[in-house]
Amino acid sequence: MHTDVVHNEQSMTPHPAGSARHPQAGGRSPRRMTPARRREHLINTALRLYSQQSLEDVSIDDIVTTADVSRALFYRYFTNIRDVHVAALSTVVDELIGRLTLPPDGDFRQQLHHTLAEFVTFVETYATSYTALLRSGSTIATSTTDTLVDRVRDHVVDLFRERLGHSSSSPMLERTLRGWIAVVETTLLSWLQHTDLPREQLETWLTDQLLAMITTTAQHDPTAAEQIRHLLAESGDEP
Amino acid sequence: MHTDVVHNEQSMTPHPAGSARHPQAGGRSPRRMTPARRREHLINTALRLYSQQSLEDVSIDDIVTTADVSRALFYRYFTNIRDVHVAALSTVVDELIGRLTLPPDGDFRQQLHHTLAEFVTFVETYATSYTALLRSGSTIATSTTDTLVDRVRDHVVDLFRERLGHSSSSPMLERTLRGWIAVVETTLLSWLQHTDLPREQLETWLTDQLLAMITTTAQHDPTAAEQIRHLLAESGDEP
Repeated sequence: MHTDVVHNEQSMTPHPAGSARHPQAGGRSPRRMTPARRREHLINTALRLYSQQSLEDVSIDDIVTTADVSRALFYRYFTNIRDVHVAALSTVVDELIGRLTLPPDGDFRQQLHHTLAEFVTFVETYATSYTALLRSGSTIATSTTDTLVDRVRDHVVDLFRERLGHSSSSPMLERTLRGWIAVVETTLLSWLQHTDLPREQLETWLTDQLLAMITTTAQHDPTAAEQIRHLLAESGDEP
Repeated sequence: MHTDVVHNEQSMTPHPAGSARHPQAGGRSPRRMTPARRREHLINTALRLYSQQSLEDVSIDDIVTTADVSRALFYRYFTNIRDVHVAALSTVVDELIGRLTLPPDGDFRQQLHHTLAEFVTFVETYATSYTALLRSGSTIATSTTDTLVDRVRDHVVDLFRERLGHSSSSPMLERTLRGWIAVVETTLLSWLQHTDLPREQLETWLTDQLLAMITTTAQHDPTAAEQIRHLLAESGDEP
């Protein structure tokens, strides 16, 4: 038996590789934790591994070795590796949704750019997991992970509605936003593979694409035009 | 044993529900076919069923009952239901790619609208299969079906390059086009669920979205601007 050590992890925040907060890295895993903390510890271990290798390549063995626990302990918390993936991705999605807010200051273009930059930071941090999560045909793509991705998309739509000052936006406007989210996802997947563009340039380009897309929608839909007039005026993009 | 009947199917073209060419519907399946024709017959049967019910709900039993053949015969051609799905979807993708051409006449906007309309016709015909194919987390989404979807996307990019008159387009222009394809896919999935917009209006909106998107890209990328100048001039969208 190992020495008993009570170790308190202080935050739910996942720590990608390179983070300073890996007290157990290279050392022994604490032997006594509350079940909630132990589960969190296993999830955080999985998250650290994802930033070093593809999520699909992380095995139960990798997790128990890195976390310095027995397989039996692992199975007290998770049924299989897919369980860990889903739990870990849920943690990350919660974290991401918390970060995707509209800053109180700035015009619409600046706010949009800020929120997009938060998203790009996230995608860069979890590049391999993000790619696995979005690539259909991936072995982890399931209706559960699909729901996780949808939670992020729905959150972005909510932010947009909030900014419009309407509880509901024109269906065409919402479709435009969801279309733009698809552009962002597709573009980031390709950008992660071939980082052929400075990040700042990519963000400006994506920001301007949404402004162009909603301007086009305003030309097709009077309700949308009415709803976004103030946003475009702020950004100097009068339709 | 049934009477021997030699029946020649004359076309590879899949026939969605409502088509007049279902000689065996309600009658007996021809007993003698060449292996190639028999395989084609089973695939066409699957395609007919897909237009009536979700691809994921079509079983081997459905196919053998509708095609009036034995299960043993089915297993001479396919290992499992997924095999049929992939073969059927390949047939449909070949058909679609054949149809997605740039008409020789018209300006860029008109050509784009024409090609898009062909695509919407396809998507409407195979609505349930299209939805299953694109929805990640679907039970049929595999790397094989993913490759099928990518074949269509790559074909659209090729058409665009051809229209530009360049063997390669600016990376940002290509990214714009792939982003727009994602907009089209996302929009059509939602439109199939809630047909809240006349088809013509949807097509015009999507056409204008691409023009707005490439115009925005031209403002960010001098190479792209140079490559699409003539397209935008034709469509009256000078950047």
